[in-house]
Amino acid sequence: MTGQLHLNAFLMGVGHHEAAWRHPATEPADLGSVAHFQRLAQIAERGTFDSVFLADSVQVAGDVEHTAAERFEPLTLLSAIAAATSRIGLIGTVSTGYSEPYNLARQFASLDHISGGRAGWNIVTTAGDRSAQNFGLDGARAHADRYRRATEFVDVATALWDSWEDEAPVRDRASGRYVDPERVHEISHDGEFFRVRGPLNSIRSRQGRPVLVQAGSSEDGKAFAAAHAEAVFTAQQTLGDARDFYRDLKARAVAAGRAPSSIAVLPGIVPVLGATAAEADRLAAELDDLIVPARAVAQLSEMIGVDLSGRPLDAPLPPLPSVERINGAKSRFELVRDLAARERLTLRQLLGRLGGGRGHQVVVGTPERIADHIEQWYAAGAADGFNVMPPLLPSGLEAFVDNVVPELRRRGLFRTEYAGTTLRDHLGFARPENRFAHAQEGEGRSVSA
Amino acid sequence: MTGQLHLNAFLMGVGHHEAAWRHPATEPADLGSVAHFQRLAQIAERGTFDSVFLADSVQVAGDVEHTAAERFEPLTLLSAIAAATSRIGLIGTVSTGYSEPYNLARQFASLDHISGGRAGWNIVTTAGDRSAQNFGLDGARAHADRYRRATEFVDVATALWDSWEDEAPVRDRASGRYVDPERVHEISHDGEFFRVRGPLNSIRSRQGRPVLVQAGSSEDGKAFAAAHAEAVFTAQQTLGDARDFYRDLKARAVAAGRAPSSIAVLPGIVPVLGATAAEADRLAAELDDLIVPARAVAQLSEMIGVDLSGRPLDAPLPPLPSVERINGAKSRFELVRDLAARERLTLRQLLGRLGGGRGHQVVVGTPERIADHIEQWYAAGAADGFNVMPPLLPSGLEAFVDNVVPELRRRGLFRTEYAGTTLRDHLGFARPENRFAHAQEGEGRSVSA
Ligand SMILES: Cc1cc2nc3c(=O)[nH]c(=O)nc-3n(C[C@H](O)[C@H](O)[C@H](O)COP(=O)(O)O)c2cc1C
Ligand SMILES: Cc1cc2nc3c(=O)[nH]c(=O)nc-3n(C[C@H](O)[C@H](O)[C@H](O)COP(=O)(O)O)c2cc1C
Repeated sequence: MTGQLHLNAFLMGVGHHEAAWRHPATEPADLGSVAHFQRLAQIAERGTFDSVFLADSVQVAGDVEHTAAERFEPLTLLSAIAAATSRIGLIGTVSTGYSEPYNLARQFASLDHISGGRAGWNIVTTAGDRSAQNFGLDGARAHADRYRRATEFVDVATALWDSWEDEAPVRDRASGRYVDPERVHEISHDGEFFRVRGPLNSIRSRQGRPVLVQAGSSEDGKAFAAAHAEAVFTAQQTLGDARDFYRDLKARAVAAGRAPSSIAVLPGIVPVLGATAAEADRLAAELDDLIVPARAVAQLSEMIGVDLSGRPLDAPLPPLPSVERINGAKSRFELVRDLAARERLTLRQLLGRLGGGRGHQVVVGTPERIADHIEQWYAAGAADGFNVMPPLLPSGLEAFVDNVVPELRRRGLFRTEYAGTTLRDHLGFARPENRFAHAQEGEGRSVSA
Repeated sequence: MTGQLHLNAFLMGVGHHEAAWRHPATEPADLGSVAHFQRLAQIAERGTFDSVFLADSVQVAGDVEHTAAERFEPLTLLSAIAAATSRIGLIGTVSTGYSEPYNLARQFASLDHISGGRAGWNIVTTAGDRSAQNFGLDGARAHADRYRRATEFVDVATALWDSWEDEAPVRDRASGRYVDPERVHEISHDGEFFRVRGPLNSIRSRQGRPVLVQAGSSEDGKAFAAAHAEAVFTAQQTLGDARDFYRDLKARAVAAGRAPSSIAVLPGIVPVLGATAAEADRLAAELDDLIVPARAVAQLSEMIGVDLSGRPLDAPLPPLPSVERINGAKSRFELVRDLAARERLTLRQLLGRLGGGRGHQVVVGTPERIADHIEQWYAAGAADGFNVMPPLLPSGLEAFVDNVVPELRRRGLFRTEYAGTTLRDHLGFARPENRFAHAQEGEGRSVSA
C-alpha cells in the first residue's frame, strides 16, 4: 500500500466552488489566462500528482448570466500546458457524441507526441439537448445510444492508434525508404455509427495511445468503464457507496477479462482547507454565502436532467421521476436523489451541499483531517486515489500540495518523486500491445497490400 | 512601400524539399520533436515574420514508404508553439470537409486566447477519396460542393465567433452576475450542410476571430478567397502569372465590396540559399539527387489528381484531361500542365522542377538574389509578401532570417520590429466588427430572450 495512491488535479477556472470567482482569494483575470493554468499544472507537478484534468462541454452553461464564461478548449490548453511542464499527465475531455474518431485520434496522438507520453482522454457521452442543437440534431440521443456510439468510437480510435506499428518508421536515409508499409495498417471499420478506412496519419505515440478515462457511473457507464477505462472519475457521497462502486467496477473489469489493477478508481474530493478546523469552516461558510440560488438551481437542473426552476427553496424536493426516465446523467441524478432523501434536505440545503462540489465529497478541515479522509477511503478499498477539486484556485491547490501532500508522503501513501515519465508510468500501467504487432506477413491489410 | 512586406514561414518537418530528411544538414529526430518546431517559430520570430504556418491533411500520404511519417496535428502543435513565443502569428490548417463548425470555432477561439491574439485559420476543402474514406464517405465530394460547404462552414464559424459581444462579460463580483445575457446571441443557423444553434461557449477572443487564410486558386477558390480570405497562399511559377493572379484577386475583392488591402496575397517561395551562387547551385543539385522518382510521381499524381505512375520518366507527359474533369486541386493541375508545356519538360525534368517546391517558385542563389526576387515581385504588384518555404529546416530558415531578412530591412521593405502584438496587427488589419455589436435591445435573439 505504500506510494500507490494516485492523485489527479481537476483544474476548473478559479476553483470548483461555483462562486469561486466571487471570492476575494481569486483573481478574475486568471479565468482567461493560460499562464494561470500553466501555473496550476506546475504546482500539481511540484506535488508529484499523476495528472491534471480538464472537463469540457459543447454548449453554454444553463445559467449564462451567473457562470464564469471564460473557457479554453481542453486539447489546445493541454498542449500549451505540456510546453510548461515535463512530467505530469494531461487529461482532456472530448465527447464521443459530436466529433469524428479520425480527428480525435489525431489530436490525442499529437498531444501524446508533444508531451512525451502524458496524454489522457476523458471519454464523455454528453447529455443535453442544447449541445445536440449545436451539431445539427434536435435533441440529445437516447442514453443507451450514446453509450453504444461511445463504444464504437473508442473501438475505432484505438484501432487507429494501433494502425502504425512501432517498427513502421525505418528512416533509411540511404535508400530513401522512410516507412515499412507492411507495418502500416488500414482498419477498414464499418459499423453502426462510423465507417473509417485508416490508417491514421501519425506514427504510434509514446504511450501507444492516451490513457482512457471515463466518468459515467450509470449501468451503461459502468459497463463501458469495465470494458475500456483505465481510470474512472466518480462522485461518491459516502464511504459505503464508494466502496460498493469500487467493488462493483473491479468485479466487472474482472468479468471482462481484465486485472482489477488495470482500472484506477478516483472519487472526487473537494478539500476545503484551513490551518485550523475553525478556519476551514469559515472558508466553507464564506463560499456558500456567495452562491446565487437561481444559478445553483439551474446548474442542478441541468446536472440531473430535471427542471427545478421556480421550486420553493425552503421545501423538500418535488417527487422525482424514476431513473429510467432520465436521459441526462443517470448516476448523478441518483446521487442527488439519495442524498436529499437520506438527509431530508430542502432544496436550499441541497444546493448548499452541492455548491462546493456538484455532488462530489466536500471535506472541510485541517490538512491532517483531509489526509485522514484520504487514507480511510484508500485503506477501506473505496478508492485507488482521488480526483482533487480545490474550491479556490490556485490557493486551494497550493494549500493541498504544501500541506496535504507532505502528510500523505509521511504516511507512506504517496510518491515523493516521479518514477517514470509517462502518465502510464505514473499509473503503473504497461504500454498497450499493438493489435497488429504480431501479425504475420500478409495478415491484416497493410497499406502496401 | 516601406516596411509593408509580409512574410510567413511555412513550417514543414525538416524542410520543404521532398528529400529533405535524407540530406545530412537535417536531423531525422527533429521530425517528431516539438522542440524543433518551437525553435523554428522562435527563429521566425527573431526575423519578425508575420506568422508561421502548418499545413495538414486527414489521410496518409500517397506513397507511405517514402514519406517522412511524423506529423503533428496543427492546433495542438500551434498551442505548444504559442507557449514558446510571444509575437508571431500562428496559422493552422483545418479542413471544412471533415469537422464540425462548433468544434473548429472553439479550438481556434481557444488558440486565439492562448496566444494573445495570434491565431489564423488556413481554410482548405480537401480533395482526395482516401481522406473522405476516413469519414464515412465513399469518395471526395464534388469540387463545387466542397466550396459550397466551405462557404457555409465559414459563415457558421464567423457567426459563432461573434456570438459573444465584447461587453458580454461584466464580472460583477458583488451581485454574482458574470455575464450580460443580452449580449450573448444564438445564431440559429439552418443551412444546406449545417444546423447550429449557438452561442459558442467561449467569450470573444483577442482578435475577434482568427485571421482567415485560404490557398485554393481555382475559379471557385478565388471566388471564396475574394469573399472571405484575409490572406491567400498561392503557388505561382512566373511573375506574369503571379501578377495576373494578384490583380484578379484584388479586383474580385473590390467587386465583393472589400478594400484591396484587406487581402494579403502571398505566393510561395522556396529559397535555396548559398553564400555564393555556386554554393546555392550545389545545394540545389544535392537535394534533387536525393529525390526518389517513384515517390515524386506518386506525390505529383496525388497533387494534380491524375495517376502518372508507371509512365516513362524520360518522355513528355501523356495527354492530360481537361480541367473540368479534375476533382482534385484544379489550380495546381493547371500550373503543372502549363509548366510542362511551356518548357517542354519530360516527366523526370518536371519532377526535378517540382521536387523543391511542389509547384512553388524555387529561387536558387545568394541572399541578394533572393531579396532581388522578392523586391521585384513585390514592386511589380505580384505579391503583398511571401510564404517562405525553406528546403531544409532549421538551416534554411536560419539562413533566410540571418541573411535575407537584414537585406530586406536595409532596402526598407520589411519591419525591423513588431509594431503590435496580434497577427491582425502584423498584417495591418483592424479587429473585425461584431455583427451583433450594435443591435438594439431585443434585436437578434439573445440567450436571455
Ligand atoms: C469528475 C467528473 C468529471 C466529469 N467531466 C465531464 C465533462 O467534462 N464533460 C461531460 O460532458 N461530462 C462529464 N462528466 C459526466 C460523466 O462523464 C457522464 O457523462 C455523466 O455522469 C453521465 O453518464 P452516466 O449517465 O453514465 O452517469 C464528469 C463526471 C465526473 C464524475
Ligand atoms: C501554400 C499552400 C498550402 C496549402 N496547404 C494545404 C493544406 O495544408 N491542406 C490541404 O488540404 N490543402 C492545402 N493546399 C491546397 C489548397 O488549399 C486547395 O485545397 C487546393 O489548391 C485545391 O483548391 P483549388 O481546386 O481551388 O485549387 C495548400 C495550397 C497552397 C498554395
